[in-house]
Amino acid sequence: MMSISERITALRLLMKKYKIDAYIVPSTDPHQSEYVPDLWQRRKWISGFTGSAGDVIVMKDQAGLWTDSRYFLQAEGQLRDSGIDLYKIGVAGVPTMLDFLKNTLKKGQTVAIDPRLQTHQQAEQWKAELTDHGLKLNYPDDNLIDRIWKDQPGLPDSPIMVWEDKYAGESVESKLKRIREKMEAEGVDVHVLSTLDAIAWTFNIRSWDVEYNPLVISYAIITQDDAELCVSKKKINRKVKKALKGLVKFYDYDAFRKRLLKNVSRKSRVWLDAATVNEWVVQLLQKRCLLFYKQSPVTLFKARKNETELAGFKACHVRDGVAMVKFLYWLEEAVPKGGVTELSAAEKLREFRSKDKLFQGLSFGTISAYNEHGAIVHYESTPESDVELKSPGIYLIDSGGQYLDGTTDITRTIALGEPTAEQKDRFTRILKGHIDLSMCRFPRGTQGIQLDTIARKPLWDIGLNYGHGTGHGVGAFLGVHEGPQGISYYRGIGVPLEIGMVCSNEPGFYKTGEYGMRIETLIHVVADERQSTTDFEFYKFETITLCPVDTRLVDKSLLNDEEIEYFNTYHQHVYDELSKHFKGKELEWLKQATRPI
Amino acid sequence: MMSISERITALRLLMKKYKIDAYIVPSTDPHQSEYVPDLWQRRKWISGFTGSAGDVIVMKDQAGLWTDSRYFLQAEGQLRDSGIDLYKIGVAGVPTMLDFLKNTLKKGQTVAIDPRLQTHQQAEQWKAELTDHGLKLNYPDDNLIDRIWKDQPGLPDSPIMVWEDKYAGESVESKLKRIREKMEAEGVDVHVLSTLDAIAWTFNIRSWDVEYNPLVISYAIITQDDAELCVSKKKINRKVKKALKGLVKFYDYDAFRKRLLKNVSRKSRVWLDAATVNEWVVQLLQKRCLLFYKQSPVTLFKARKNETELAGFKACHVRDGVAMVKFLYWLEEAVPKGGVTELSAAEKLREFRSKDKLFQGLSFGTISAYNEHGAIVHYESTPESDVELKSPGIYLIDSGGQYLDGTTDITRTIALGEPTAEQKDRFTRILKGHIDLSMCRFPRGTQGIQLDTIARKPLWDIGLNYGHGTGHGVGAFLGVHEGPQGISYYRGIGVPLEIGMVCSNEPGFYKTGEYGMRIETLIHVVADERQSTTDFEFYKFETITLCPVDTRLVDKSLLNDEEIEYFNTYHQHVYDELSKHFKGKELEWLKQATRPI
Repeated sequence: MMSISERITALRLLMKKYKIDAYIVPSTDPHQSEYVPDLWQRRKWISGFTGSAGDVIVMKDQAGLWTDSRYFLQAEGQLRDSGIDLYKIGVAGVPTMLDFLKNTLKKGQTVAIDPRLQTHQQAEQWKAELTDHGLKLNYPDDNLIDRIWKDQPGLPDSPIMVWEDKYAGESVESKLKRIREKMEAEGVDVHVLSTLDAIAWTFNIRSWDVEYNPLVISYAIITQDDAELCVSKKKINRKVKKALKGLVKFYDYDAFRKRLLKNVSRKSRVWLDAATVNEWVVQLLQKRCLLFYKQSPVTLFKARKNETELAGFKACHVRDGVAMVKFLYWLEEAVPKGGVTELSAAEKLREFRSKDKLFQGLSFGTISAYNEHGAIVHYESTPESDVELKSPGIYLIDSGGQYLDGTTDITRTIALGEPTAEQKDRFTRILKGHIDLSMCRFPRGTQGIQLDTIARKPLWDIGLNYGHGTGHGVGAFLGVHEGPQGISYYRGIGVPLEIGMVCSNEPGFYKTGEYGMRIETLIHVVADERQSTTDFEFYKFETITLCPVDTRLVDKSLLNDEEIEYFNTYHQHVYDELSKHFKGKELEWLKQATRPI
Repeated sequence: MMSISERITALRLLMKKYKIDAYIVPSTDPHQSEYVPDLWQRRKWISGFTGSAGDVIVMKDQAGLWTDSRYFLQAEGQLRDSGIDLYKIGVAGVPTMLDFLKNTLKKGQTVAIDPRLQTHQQAEQWKAELTDHGLKLNYPDDNLIDRIWKDQPGLPDSPIMVWEDKYAGESVESKLKRIREKMEAEGVDVHVLSTLDAIAWTFNIRSWDVEYNPLVISYAIITQDDAELCVSKKKINRKVKKALKGLVKFYDYDAFRKRLLKNVSRKSRVWLDAATVNEWVVQLLQKRCLLFYKQSPVTLFKARKNETELAGFKACHVRDGVAMVKFLYWLEEAVPKGGVTELSAAEKLREFRSKDKLFQGLSFGTISAYNEHGAIVHYESTPESDVELKSPGIYLIDSGGQYLDGTTDITRTIALGEPTAEQKDRFTRILKGHIDLSMCRFPRGTQGIQLDTIARKPLWDIGLNYGHGTGHGVGAFLGVHEGPQGISYYRGIGVPLEIGMVCSNEPGFYKTGEYGMRIETLIHVVADERQSTTDFEFYKFETITLCPVDTRLVDKSLLNDEEIEYFNTYHQHVYDELSKHFKGKELEWLKQATRPI
């Protein structure tokens, strides 16, 4: 196997041949996936750095990795002796990649990147900024890493499964009809889908090409008469062929280029989503047809869950709640006996979930974090960091499952032994914000950024805050992080919350070196008939997640009467929905855990 | 005088000559001013419509005016028999101007607009959308209205006054130094200023070229060595020449084109603000030098008031508060006697304000609105609409003054006679939101859109809302509406609130056909030392405006203890600051008006 420095040397040789002064190796893939399949983990291959986010620049006599605070420690370790410098994103004085290129390269020098690994929007920004500084930006069709990576894996070949209408609630025929109506309204002939969750939604297909997200690596081309799916032939089976017969034509993943060009002519207007489509597609098309840039209609279709999808969400949350209650009961019994660690607890929870027949896997890597580990927002326990859970202490578990009928994402914070007054104060403020957001009513047109504050305010009132958004969208047996909406100061800006959208509600508090706390449930937007007036139509949230919140961490004096009533009603609801699945000591535990405060 | 239809006929003749199929006549001017001087009121001249916002499209055989809901009634009246159709912006099914052009014109036809009347940002959007639909967009250098408008006024020639350092708190030299530092950091050679408040701020000059805003119609060109001001020669006097000697060179307004070209070469990098600079400037420069687009550094410099400016704000608010208290006392005495109308009350308030030596004029057209008129958010009383104020009723007065040391903007709502329980409920909810926003603490980096919700929540809780932002920025003896920040769901998105920024805090409630209510004070951002932690630096607001809020409209049971304490402390503060300016019955009235609830 080549060492990292041998790989970089090989890349530099190739760069010389291609007349490239700086080659960019991003962590992403052609579909802007959150989880990248092995064959496209080129940044990991060239640098040895295994974090989920981080881009590399290789130049003739230096190289750098840009990553964010989650990965500073890990990157420092993994880059040692690699010859790659670490650039810490967000740290004062550290240049962005673009600024680095502008400051380091001389006028006339050439930056290059695989056009599949930049969205058109990013590419436009890079072109403008680099050109403005007298630099050239090239998009070689060859990926240089692929040319030197000898044992690069192939495309994943896990079979495609048909997501049945009883879960999807809408046939592929109906979905294509709605997409085509939007295409007609915009006067476009062709719509290209390149994001994998949009394709999975449109064709009611799922597969396990990447971890956690049941996606099918593919491109889709939709016209008024046809729909073509370009996907590895190994993945196609009789069932999916039958389900999509007459609706979809299958082509190989590598045939996408050819099919795309076949489907357009000089006069075609082609709809691309500039925020997600990669620059390679744009460059293929731009001189061959008219391009029309707008968010894909699928994005909002997919975000607004239909009644069947919402019923599935609710159903899988009952079963997920049962697994969570079994886990929490087990935890309370097991911790005092000793030997329970972050990793073993996470595995136990996975076991409880996996007993469900519709369970397909986890929806993301479980965050099982004891005390100071809980203050690391994206902590993922490893055999090296794993610790035993002991009393007293604070334990945070953020986890979720993929079920055939929906996706879950839940965080609970557990007091092991007696919490301190400060811990109770902080937890109750999170709970207060969490409840206030759950209870709020808002006029149609309101964006998540307008509601994010409601969850933060109890912490702000005493000069505290949390450094992440309050909520993200969630897919229906799709990505646990799904746009376009969010309840956040940085995600989903400009996107009004609409009926049927599912979001997380997860305020937290993190005390570095001591503990972290978070309460997360999923909520969905419904009409608020009672509140709507002639001038303003009102919406509200309904909570989907069913699991007790640890009342031992609650300081009741910080809650007002409305909040206490809401909290007690929620716990009664949890008991009512889950109790029939328990008996004996577990039932007794659930009863205790959900009794009114 | 030509009739409207004669004017349109003349325009159509000219359009034919210029080969234009659709000519756009926007309401704006080359500087994107909120108030447009007479010579640039071309849209009013061509259409007869006098509202502040509304754009016209003239085509061969049809013409249309696009305006918003504030002006629907007025436009219907003023457009009657003009041959111009009214397009109501925001009404379902009514196309936008761009959609109208795309739907109505045939491929290959030509849209034209004076390039001075579109910002570069707008122009980019128009070019992209029209070109995408096979239409042409032309920017003729001639303004077609100017060519047919015989008695068009000339440029205003009110003298420039020097805004003294004792008010400005920073010399022109220092301001230019800071601008040049930013220019150097961005590697630019020339910065063009075209927004009038940016120029007035930079050069510490004021004038009365337009109503309400003390602006100087001009362009400025700043280089590392020079600053050039292009302004009507009639406006220049000895005083301003002396004050700016060695700092600024004066040229005529019409010499701007020539001076601009003189200041750039092929190698120059010129800094333009794409959101404000007009397309004419861009077209002049784009093939002659390198263009660098970014918000002007002046925007944030100007928004963050220095200590002298804040002291001026506070000082003028004492005097403005005195005028307001005199007015409110007078109102209470005068209304029962009869004969007080919306217009006479507004005039009375202007008189009280004008007694101050530093008073320069109103900062905007007073909204003096009785009962149902108060529900029309931008109501401005006219002799035709004027009504007498009578008990019982609700009176809303939104007004402000320009003083040499600052700008004011205040709204108070007065109960004439006994208010209803509903009125008290609605008013108290506004007050509650107003207080909650005033009291809130927020981490550095927070945008106004994140705080806007705090003021709305008490209304949202019962399914009500108001259809405007909660707050706008305010200039220091400049525009009463000043960017970039806002406390709003649509204004100031992406702009963090910073120390020294002044905003209004003005939640309201409007019941169509019955009454309108609003409470408005100005607030400014300060550090919150007590709340700041190592992880997050906290900010809070301080209230500047000094004037009682009508306690007869308050239902104390809707406020919590903290809100009541805040309210009583505010009233005590108003009394402490203003009482020394009153005696006898007025003092007694102030004492009563500010006593604790």
